[in-house]
Amino acid sequence: MAAARPQGVRDTTRLTERGERGGGADQASMRRTNLGLILRHLRDHGGQSRARVASETGLSKATLSSLIADLVDRGLVTEGELERGGSVGRPGLTLHVDGRHVAGLGLEINVDFLALTAVDLTGRVLVESTRPLDTAALPVAEVVEAAAELLTRATRSLRARGVRPVAVTVAVPGSIDPAAGRVMFAPNVGWRDVPLVRELTARLGRSAPPVVIENDAKLGAVAEHTLVAASGIDDLVYLTGDVGVGAGIIVEGHVLRGASGFAGEVGHIPLDPAGGACACGRRGCWETMVGLGAFLRLAADEGDPVRDPRRPLEERLGELHARAAGGDDRAVAAVDRVGRDLGVGLSVLVDLFDPRLVVLGGWFAYFRDALVPPLQATLAARALTDSVPHVTASDLGLAAASRGGAHLALGSVFRDPGGIDPPKPSSRPA
Amino acid sequence: MAAARPQGVRDTTRLTERGERGGGADQASMRRTNLGLILRHLRDHGGQSRARVASETGLSKATLSSLIADLVDRGLVTEGELERGGSVGRPGLTLHVDGRHVAGLGLEINVDFLALTAVDLTGRVLVESTRPLDTAALPVAEVVEAAAELLTRATRSLRARGVRPVAVTVAVPGSIDPAAGRVMFAPNVGWRDVPLVRELTARLGRSAPPVVIENDAKLGAVAEHTLVAASGIDDLVYLTGDVGVGAGIIVEGHVLRGASGFAGEVGHIPLDPAGGACACGRRGCWETMVGLGAFLRLAADEGDPVRDPRRPLEERLGELHARAAGGDDRAVAAVDRVGRDLGVGLSVLVDLFDPRLVVLGGWFAYFRDALVPPLQATLAARALTDSVPHVTASDLGLAAASRGGAHLALGSVFRDPGGIDPPKPSSRPA
Repeated sequence: MAAARPQGVRDTTRLTERGERGGGADQASMRRTNLGLILRHLRDHGGQSRARVASETGLSKATLSSLIADLVDRGLVTEGELERGGSVGRPGLTLHVDGRHVAGLGLEINVDFLALTAVDLTGRVLVESTRPLDTAALPVAEVVEAAAELLTRATRSLRARGVRPVAVTVAVPGSIDPAAGRVMFAPNVGWRDVPLVRELTARLGRSAPPVVIENDAKLGAVAEHTLVAASGIDDLVYLTGDVGVGAGIIVEGHVLRGASGFAGEVGHIPLDPAGGACACGRRGCWETMVGLGAFLRLAADEGDPVRDPRRPLEERLGELHARAAGGDDRAVAAVDRVGRDLGVGLSVLVDLFDPRLVVLGGWFAYFRDALVPPLQATLAARALTDSVPHVTASDLGLAAASRGGAHLALGSVFRDPGGIDPPKPSSRPA
Repeated sequence: MAAARPQGVRDTTRLTERGERGGGADQASMRRTNLGLILRHLRDHGGQSRARVASETGLSKATLSSLIADLVDRGLVTEGELERGGSVGRPGLTLHVDGRHVAGLGLEINVDFLALTAVDLTGRVLVESTRPLDTAALPVAEVVEAAAELLTRATRSLRARGVRPVAVTVAVPGSIDPAAGRVMFAPNVGWRDVPLVRELTARLGRSAPPVVIENDAKLGAVAEHTLVAASGIDDLVYLTGDVGVGAGIIVEGHVLRGASGFAGEVGHIPLDPAGGACACGRRGCWETMVGLGAFLRLAADEGDPVRDPRRPLEERLGELHARAAGGDDRAVAAVDRVGRDLGVGLSVLVDLFDPRLVVLGGWFAYFRDALVPPLQATLAARALTDSVPHVTASDLGLAAASRGGAHLALGSVFRDPGGIDPPKPSSRPA
């Protein structure tokens, strides 16, 4: 289970600080820990000789030898000639992370498309593609079949290029039970209690990489975090406009999941007992103010073509965008109102999470220029401290969740390389 | 800085999963990492021979020797005779964590008391004391002086017993800047922008352990987590009733701090635009419904003695508790109403954090029997998933925050034993 929470032995003294290597460890788990240690050491320090790795990690020669042989077997490390870079003396052999031959895959299943991204261990995007699919109108089995096809084609093409896909994260727009591999409820595609991991795995066959599922907004947050982590931003809120409003929250560099994987549900924050009726049966939930339906009702009368559900959403949003840009009073006021109401709800998330950055995704990103100013003003006016986050919009478009899924899949390689099977002789890269 | 976030080298491939040993590491930081590794290994596996530690950790003999000498120098590990426990053969020497000679300290500064707790590395509470002090009425300098006295007396008495205090966490009821060691704003004690760490350190002298500060509700959450972590509960919300309402949130075993240390501010969730006026200038914030003032207004008319601010709060709450227990309509209705409104606000925290447990502290804990049923019913009615947390009340009383502070202080020992100075010859335990 690549994306599941690491199952380290419990920290029996119940400390509450980060930065510890997993609590207790017997010899077998210590070996896996050390496998990851060496791989991360090589990642962070470039190529190094065996002698240098031994001296810097403090591991014994015998242990190191055996661990390196294991990493080479798994196709994660190669031994090659030192780049001399001006130094004197004879060139020696150095160990390198073999990042180009291993990839993580992310697949998003959304209302009207599938998206697939593959990223290799060096962070390079190898594949990024979308395929229109009216998932909401199709039976679950057909959608799963299409997803499996896309994955199979991608894994084949990667393997043909000498790249081994090691794990897949599937993004779903709904609440999921990651441990059980089930989609609990994904209203926009009309799914309820779908054992997606089982269904997909059955279609992918035995040679396929392991599959986990995750909520699409959480994976969008992961993708945005990969873009800013190098700037030291490890606390962010990703907020995506959909039929409702979804969120993925990064806390100290890690996506927030909660005890059962349901964390980050922001749509039903009760902001006004006298507010509009919500699909959940209550009134004044945040999504009755900033969801797509609310926005369309604010922006146009009922007969207006932008409210015609039979027209493609992108077209209707494009039209509204043009109206707002052209100064149409009603469209301008609607965007402004949604921007301010986004600010009210976001102020709750800012008080609770104290993020450094807020990223808008989905249709919010499309209206970024007009939404961000009223949003940021509301946030500043409601701030309890000077710590007001920067607000920006996503540039990842439809690929946000699949990109995040690919990165999450790769995380398992560095965390626990012992969980990555060695390549089959036939698929070993040349 | 015991409680500050570990300063590991950045994870340059921007992964977003837990369980990795800190990113890159040069030889010096690898040495510190390995010090912690051995100490935690001994903690989790009891006494072990050098040979066994070498074989299980994979560290070379030379590295291990040097690391163990360092841990012994720092007074964290001792080498003693093996308890044979029925096994045959001659007894050998084994390494042990020397938990009884090292303590973490927590000190709480609150409105009408100071509290101090010392906990040793084995988790035993060595000191737990409170001292009444009208901090809100005294100048900051006098409170700091009293806190320093309490700390000095405790460290002296611990040292006399052969116990070395290694770090202090000071709990303050307000928003703090942990990095700067400043209290930003603590309205209940009337503090604004107090450089508390500097002031305390100046009074404690050079031989004192390092001091960090943290918000009291965050430390209360840490203390509650130490009590349930062994049951596998690593996601909890601690909610404390005060003049307002404070929260400490544990996410995957770690206290939530946010980018600037301000996370967990729950009092001003805007639940009703038509609600009562809040001290923050807006209307309908959660604390206008569940704060102490709201409760007293709901429970009794203005002239009622329980609303007389000159009487001790504990006495007034005791009287209200007796009235509610005796079936007084007004008191019963007030507790029921606060319980339901606690449920409304808590439903937001449940949606966002998906905790396994909610713990009530402060005066909420005092009314636990009457508050929990309406609270739990509201939470269940508002739940979006089946994942409804258990709700309970704290038994730690006034010691919650200082207990949490002591545990947090100890965290630094296992995380980074290299940051713990060796004992001075005079204070070395016999």
